[in-house]
This record gives sequence, C-alpha cells and structure tokens, in this order.
Amino acid sequence: MTYELYYWPMLQGRGEFVRLALEDAGAPYIDVARGGPGDEGDPPALAALLHDPSLGRPPFALPALRDGDLVVAQTAAILLYLGPRLGLVGPSEADRIWTHQIQLTIADMRAEAHDTHHPVAAALTYEEQKPESARRAVDFRTERIPKFFGWFERVLVRNDGRHLAGRVVSYADLSLFQLVAGLLYAFPKTTEAALKKHPCLEALHRAVPERPRLSGYLTSPRRIPFNEQGIFRRYPELDA
Amino acid sequence: MTYELYYWPMLQGRGEFVRLALEDAGAPYIDVARGGPGDEGDPPALAALLHDPSLGRPPFALPALRDGDLVVAQTAAILLYLGPRLGLVGPSEADRIWTHQIQLTIADMRAEAHDTHHPVAAALTYEEQKPESARRAVDFRTERIPKFFGWFERVLVRNDGRHLAGRVVSYADLSLFQLVAGLLYAFPKTTEAALKKHPCLEALHRAVPERPRLSGYLTSPRRIPFNEQGIFRRYPELDA
Repeated sequence: MTYELYYWPMLQGRGEFVRLALEDAGAPYIDVARGGPGDEGDPPALAALLHDPSLGRPPFALPALRDGDLVVAQTAAILLYLGPRLGLVGPSEADRIWTHQIQLTIADMRAEAHDTHHPVAAALTYEEQKPESARRAVDFRTERIPKFFGWFERVLVRNDGRHLAGRVVSYADLSLFQLVAGLLYAFPKTTEAALKKHPCLEALHRAVPERPRLSGYLTSPRRIPFNEQGIFRRYPELDA
Repeated sequence: MTYELYYWPMLQGRGEFVRLALEDAGAPYIDVARGGPGDEGDPPALAALLHDPSLGRPPFALPALRDGDLVVAQTAAILLYLGPRLGLVGPSEADRIWTHQIQLTIADMRAEAHDTHHPVAAALTYEEQKPESARRAVDFRTERIPKFFGWFERVLVRNDGRHLAGRVVSYADLSLFQLVAGLLYAFPKTTEAALKKHPCLEALHRAVPERPRLSGYLTSPRRIPFNEQGIFRRYPELDA
C-alpha cells in the first residue's frame, strides 16, 4: 500500500511532521503535490481534495493522508493512525494514548510558535501585525519556551532519558526533533540558550537526525529548507 | 470503576468537554476539585497531580482523567480514550479516527476563541491586551467563524444531517454543542447570525441538550455558568 500525502509543496509546515514519520519508517508514499524522481507532482490535487464533493468525510485543512479509501486529516490524527502501522509507537493502549498526548502538546507549542508572527490573523501578512507579534514573541520566549521545554525534559528524565515514551523511538520523538529544529531556525538565540538548560531534550534533538533513513532524508532535496512561508520564520527582531 | 476528573473548579474551560461526555453516558466520576453531594472537593489535589514527582507520565496541563493507574491529559486524548468506553464513538477504526479528527478541529476553534481575548499572552489580563484583542476578534468573527461553521455544516450534511459521524451521537457532537454554546455566550450577535446560515449546526445545537441525562446535568448546579474566567468570555466590544 502506497500512502498519499496531500500538503503544500513550498513549505515544511504541519506536513513535515508526517513526512518525518513516513521517511523514518521507509514507508512507500507519494508526496502528491511534489511528485518524485521523474514525476512533477500534481499541486491542483490539493484543492481538488479539499473541495471534493464526493468525500463523505472531508478534511478541514491539510495535511491529509490517503490510505486506500480512507482520508485522514489533522496532523496528530494522521500520526495516531500511522503510528502502529509504521512501528513508531509502543504496543499497549497506555503507550499509544501517552504518545498521542505528547504529540498534542507538541502541536500546541507549534501553534503558539506560528502565532508569534501571526497573533492577529493568519490571513494577514506578518508586516500587517508587527507590533502585536513583538509583544507575543516576548511572552513566547520568556514564558512559553521554558514551560514547554521544562515539561519535555521532565518527560524524558522520567522515562529513560533518551525517548519520550518507552524504550523505542516514537513518532513523538521525531516530531519533537522537528519542533526544536524549527525553534532553532526561528529563535536561534533563545532556543540555544534554553537547550543548554535541558540536556535530555538537546540530546534527543541531536540523536534523531542521526537515524539512518532520516539522515538520508534530511540531506536530500526532499527536505524543504525552512523559510518565511512556514510555521517557523526567522524574523530576528522577534528573537531579540 | 469511578473516573476521577482533575480540572479547575471555577470555570467550564476545557474540562467541560470531558464532563459532557461523562454526564451524557451516566458514567461514575468524581470531579476531584469540586466534590459532590456531602463532599467539599479537594482543590489542592490539582496542583498535587501536576507536580507529583512519582508520575512517570505527568500531565502538561489540566484537564486530566485518572482511570485506576492511568492518567490521561489533553482534552482530545481523554475523549479518544473515553469514547469507546462510554459508547460515544462508532465501532470501526475509521469511525474513531474521523470522530477524533473532528474533535481536534473543535479544539482548534476553541483555542482561537480563547485567543480573541488573549492574543498576546495567557499570563496577562484581557485589559492588558485590549487593542490586540479587538483586531483579532474582527478576524475571528468575519473569517474564522464562517470557515469553521461552514465545515461543520458540510460534515453534517454529508452524513445524515443530524450527527457528525455515523448514526449515533458521538463525543464530537457533544463537544460541538459546547463550542456553539460558548460562542453564543461570547459572541451572541455574530453567532446567532451565523447559525441562521447553518441550519444543521443549529439543529444539532438544539438537539444535544435535550438528551435526558444532559438535560438533567445542564440544569443542575454541577453545570458551572459561563463567566469571564473561562475560554468563552462576554466582552461586548469584541462582538461589535
């Protein structure tokens, strides 16, 4: 079975959390809007999916994953679905609900990171909400990063120091790597300083990209560079 | 088995989405900080849970549900866990992932509703971020309510017109009732006008509180009134 990932082709965004899981597992998938070697991709397929009147269970937004007849949207729900299939979650119900709980907290921090440059409206540009962004970024840097990083560190320490859940790498570990990578891009000064205080989190962030398949992916053209269209944007004035 | 719900006693908040599921199912539970008849409740238990060093899998925030040895946090994860146990989700994996996907979208709108009065920082008061709130509320009223309501209506229409998923009431239906109730409290003018354009959503919002157990709950002292400490706050200037 080849999975089909529907996501915007010009940015990492929420889709990247799904890509990392698929890539780490070596799962067969098509990045629908981007294609692959010898295939140009099909960007119009994204809008076609979102507006397909024949879908009984339509996505609210992308990413969406198609697996045969099933279409799943909402990043955390996609990972909930893929986790057992890709071997990226523990076997018990307690493991799965815990891993998902961590993923939802990663999603909360990801949304807050986005809102540092879009605190008023996603439909406006950053330039149209700079004063509000400046205020929100101060709170994010001084209150939210310490609170979230403190919890991630606590979770790692209370487990084995190396994984968030159990003794194996889960999709939440991959997502936490991506979250920290994005924060290092957007808020390099703040994030580097914060990581120094959270050694297990820093170690996880260093270890995940050394996994063989992920290492190959992250150095390939399939990994879209961070840019100022995505969740994590480098506006130096917000990292003052 | 008696469930234990850990949530702040003075507001509906995120905990209310869990309460509605427990109440609708007639499940035995203790609202730990509030107690019940002849029981004063134990508010200090909330901080004790959040800071319990013996918990291997600590909550990031409340609500949290304790079921025997298992502690689950994150509202949507709690409902994912409770859904099959309370008979509030369809039997197939496809039903469960779809219901959860809807719940996550309800959670997204709930977070955006909160941020209309706290667009800068949750740690500041509304009075400390009124200009930013005014701008964000305009976007929420004119762009976000129509977009979310349009999707909920589409989901209802493509199903049976009365339920979000399948032919039975799911926890997502209960949560959507709560979301609309909160929006009617916070943005009465905008929400009433929007409901007129979304008849299936309006019908669901009217039907859910007529369910016998929920009706009993909603008219009991256990239902905390909406107030200006919760997610949904009535600041008339934001509903202009």
